[in-house]
Amino acid sequence: MDFVWKDGGVCAPKGFKASGVHCGIRKNKTKKDLALIVADKPCSAAAVYTTNKVYGAPIVVTREHLKNGLAKAVICNSGNANTCNADGVAKANAMAELVERFAGVDKNDVIVASTGVIGQVLPLEPIESGMRSLVDGLSYSGSGDAAEAIMTTDTVKKEFALSYETEGKTVTIGAMAKGSGMIHPNMATLLCFVTTDAAVSSAMLDAALREAVADTLNMVSIDGDTSTNDMLSVMASGEAGNAEITQKDESYAMFVGALTELLTKVSRGIAKDGEGATKLMECVVKGAPDKACAKRIAKSVITSSLLKAAVFASDANWGRILCAIGYAEGDFDVSKISVDISSANGSVRVCENGSGVDFSEEQATKVLDRDEFTITVNLFDGSAEATAWGCDLTYDYVKINADYRT
Amino acid sequence: MDFVWKDGGVCAPKGFKASGVHCGIRKNKTKKDLALIVADKPCSAAAVYTTNKVYGAPIVVTREHLKNGLAKAVICNSGNANTCNADGVAKANAMAELVERFAGVDKNDVIVASTGVIGQVLPLEPIESGMRSLVDGLSYSGSGDAAEAIMTTDTVKKEFALSYETEGKTVTIGAMAKGSGMIHPNMATLLCFVTTDAAVSSAMLDAALREAVADTLNMVSIDGDTSTNDMLSVMASGEAGNAEITQKDESYAMFVGALTELLTKVSRGIAKDGEGATKLMECVVKGAPDKACAKRIAKSVITSSLLKAAVFASDANWGRILCAIGYAEGDFDVSKISVDISSANGSVRVCENGSGVDFSEEQATKVLDRDEFTITVNLFDGSAEATAWGCDLTYDYVKINADYRT
Repeated sequence: MDFVWKDGGVCAPKGFKASGVHCGIRKNKTKKDLALIVADKPCSAAAVYTTNKVYGAPIVVTREHLKNGLAKAVICNSGNANTCNADGVAKANAMAELVERFAGVDKNDVIVASTGVIGQVLPLEPIESGMRSLVDGLSYSGSGDAAEAIMTTDTVKKEFALSYETEGKTVTIGAMAKGSGMIHPNMATLLCFVTTDAAVSSAMLDAALREAVADTLNMVSIDGDTSTNDMLSVMASGEAGNAEITQKDESYAMFVGALTELLTKVSRGIAKDGEGATKLMECVVKGAPDKACAKRIAKSVITSSLLKAAVFASDANWGRILCAIGYAEGDFDVSKISVDISSANGSVRVCENGSGVDFSEEQATKVLDRDEFTITVNLFDGSAEATAWGCDLTYDYVKINADYRT
Repeated sequence: MDFVWKDGGVCAPKGFKASGVHCGIRKNKTKKDLALIVADKPCSAAAVYTTNKVYGAPIVVTREHLKNGLAKAVICNSGNANTCNADGVAKANAMAELVERFAGVDKNDVIVASTGVIGQVLPLEPIESGMRSLVDGLSYSGSGDAAEAIMTTDTVKKEFALSYETEGKTVTIGAMAKGSGMIHPNMATLLCFVTTDAAVSSAMLDAALREAVADTLNMVSIDGDTSTNDMLSVMASGEAGNAEITQKDESYAMFVGALTELLTKVSRGIAKDGEGATKLMECVVKGAPDKACAKRIAKSVITSSLLKAAVFASDANWGRILCAIGYAEGDFDVSKISVDISSANGSVRVCENGSGVDFSEEQATKVLDRDEFTITVNLFDGSAEATAWGCDLTYDYVKINADYRT
């Protein structure tokens, strides 16, 4: 499909203001820690959540608020996950009430999210004292501030937007997201807030979100840990003026296509900025007997700690790719496998028919010595395909996570 | 049950000689790389293997040789896994033939194993040229040399033995093993060779091995990667003089008990010497609705990269324990969970009813600042228990695996 990338993140679609401030949950005063998105009008809305049985209090509250398929605002703090706290739900509700009090949005229309350390009591005082400046700061160009405020160990801000044309109207979808550890493909593996000016019913928004997530954010893994606070929400303002999408027709397909493009961009951004990462590792599996099998293999490859450490050193230790393929669940034939490694520096075949082939280690190292590279696995055992995204495992991953609470 | 620890490793039971030499598969001439165990008489034998669909050529050959439940020797090289090589099976067969030629053991009674880099052609020449001194070196006190020869990134040699009394006879079981990366609970997660002088039928030996492994080596994870070459074999010489164990009676139960004790020791040794590890992390799960659930939770906790990095820094970031419990598969209740951390430095409770409790961070750090510690999780949701063993994630894990082939 045709689409164009846009600036403006979650404010690129019509009808959304955003803001981000430092309120004091974090000690570092230069780091924003509280974000707000407010729509001009009530939006149809949907969300997906972590599958972790230990989940954050904000998820309890957001699930309740989205039951009617409507939302008007997102509030999100970083620095504290508000998870495993006896008073967690009360605090998450209080965050929604603060949005009602300061921004005039019905508390039941507020999506609440938190990210940070698990199991420390969330202080409400900084949030309350920061609300005035947070609300005063709301603007149609505030996406960057909000995207900054939800970052934890992320090193780069993640906001993206794209537009496509339909029925003579321009539909825009925007997103902001945070990684970058405790990420593993098991439903919405991070925080991501999507806005769009498309007119879409909440039922179709929910369906579109699930379709798009299955091939994008659920195919990202940084460290195999599925967070307790993952959430991906979408709000649709309808201000693009298209005829409302209410069934799985061509307009729906276009919307899903655009949303998938956007979330692919988010996924690659999340993976590339994984904790301590120096490289984006993409694994494309082709020729698989079915899609589920292709996905399991792709995820298994990008999840292997051994492979992740090897590619950090640009070492084409392809035996570890075969090893990771082999322990992926399922019944598939490994005897015909070929493996190619490619990047902007070229391509090299390292394995054919499940066995090693002569290749230039020098060329292989050169191929891996880029900040993005692709491992292409062909099973020659069908026609299904899947792609997964991960990153290398580095000293800095250890350092970041050994020092996380200090 | 009553038992005593013994010296002598795989040579502690009656009827087994062992040897280890440097033959030249490895460039480092000070590192032994070829091991041999030879029994005085044919033994009943059994083995378990990796579940990886990509598996080493030695496994193909060993499976074939153990079909009749008999074996008389083990040959194992380190430095090359003989996996993903087009000529792998021919080379593994050739290794068995070399044992026949030099040690007079029928090639069909030889257990063949290899460990090291995957996907590099195994050179037979060094093995052939080393066979004479390997066979000449066979002795009833050679376990240490053999145990050294199978080490890869292991930093300590792993050999253990124990004895127990039955029917007025002394039964001894010995083991040698190698870790220390590419280890994940999914069947026999490493190389381990067990010998015993017990008289046991091969059927009962196979049953006993599977029982003991389920609670020991299958509960170890270093890095989540299930190797292609894992194998755990056992040979029983019968020289202890006990009445042969041919059914699941009391003698069988004693043998399983002793084997489980021995393999628990091996498991702890493997985990503590995990690649780059500075600490043995034990997770005991109690009060679970069933054993399978207890096992999944224990394994999930010791596998979490985030937790592993935190404990490297002796940081009691217990939220990560809860997170890892929560993403363990299965339907269980997380609302009553308590978590205690203990070591030779004391104990501290960090979580009750699924929420944090006030505790002294100073005391918690002191507890974690040991080379062995235990995380005890109680679900208060039944009476099943399980234990799993892992290690911390350190800079050295990354270094070892980034540099592995250089």
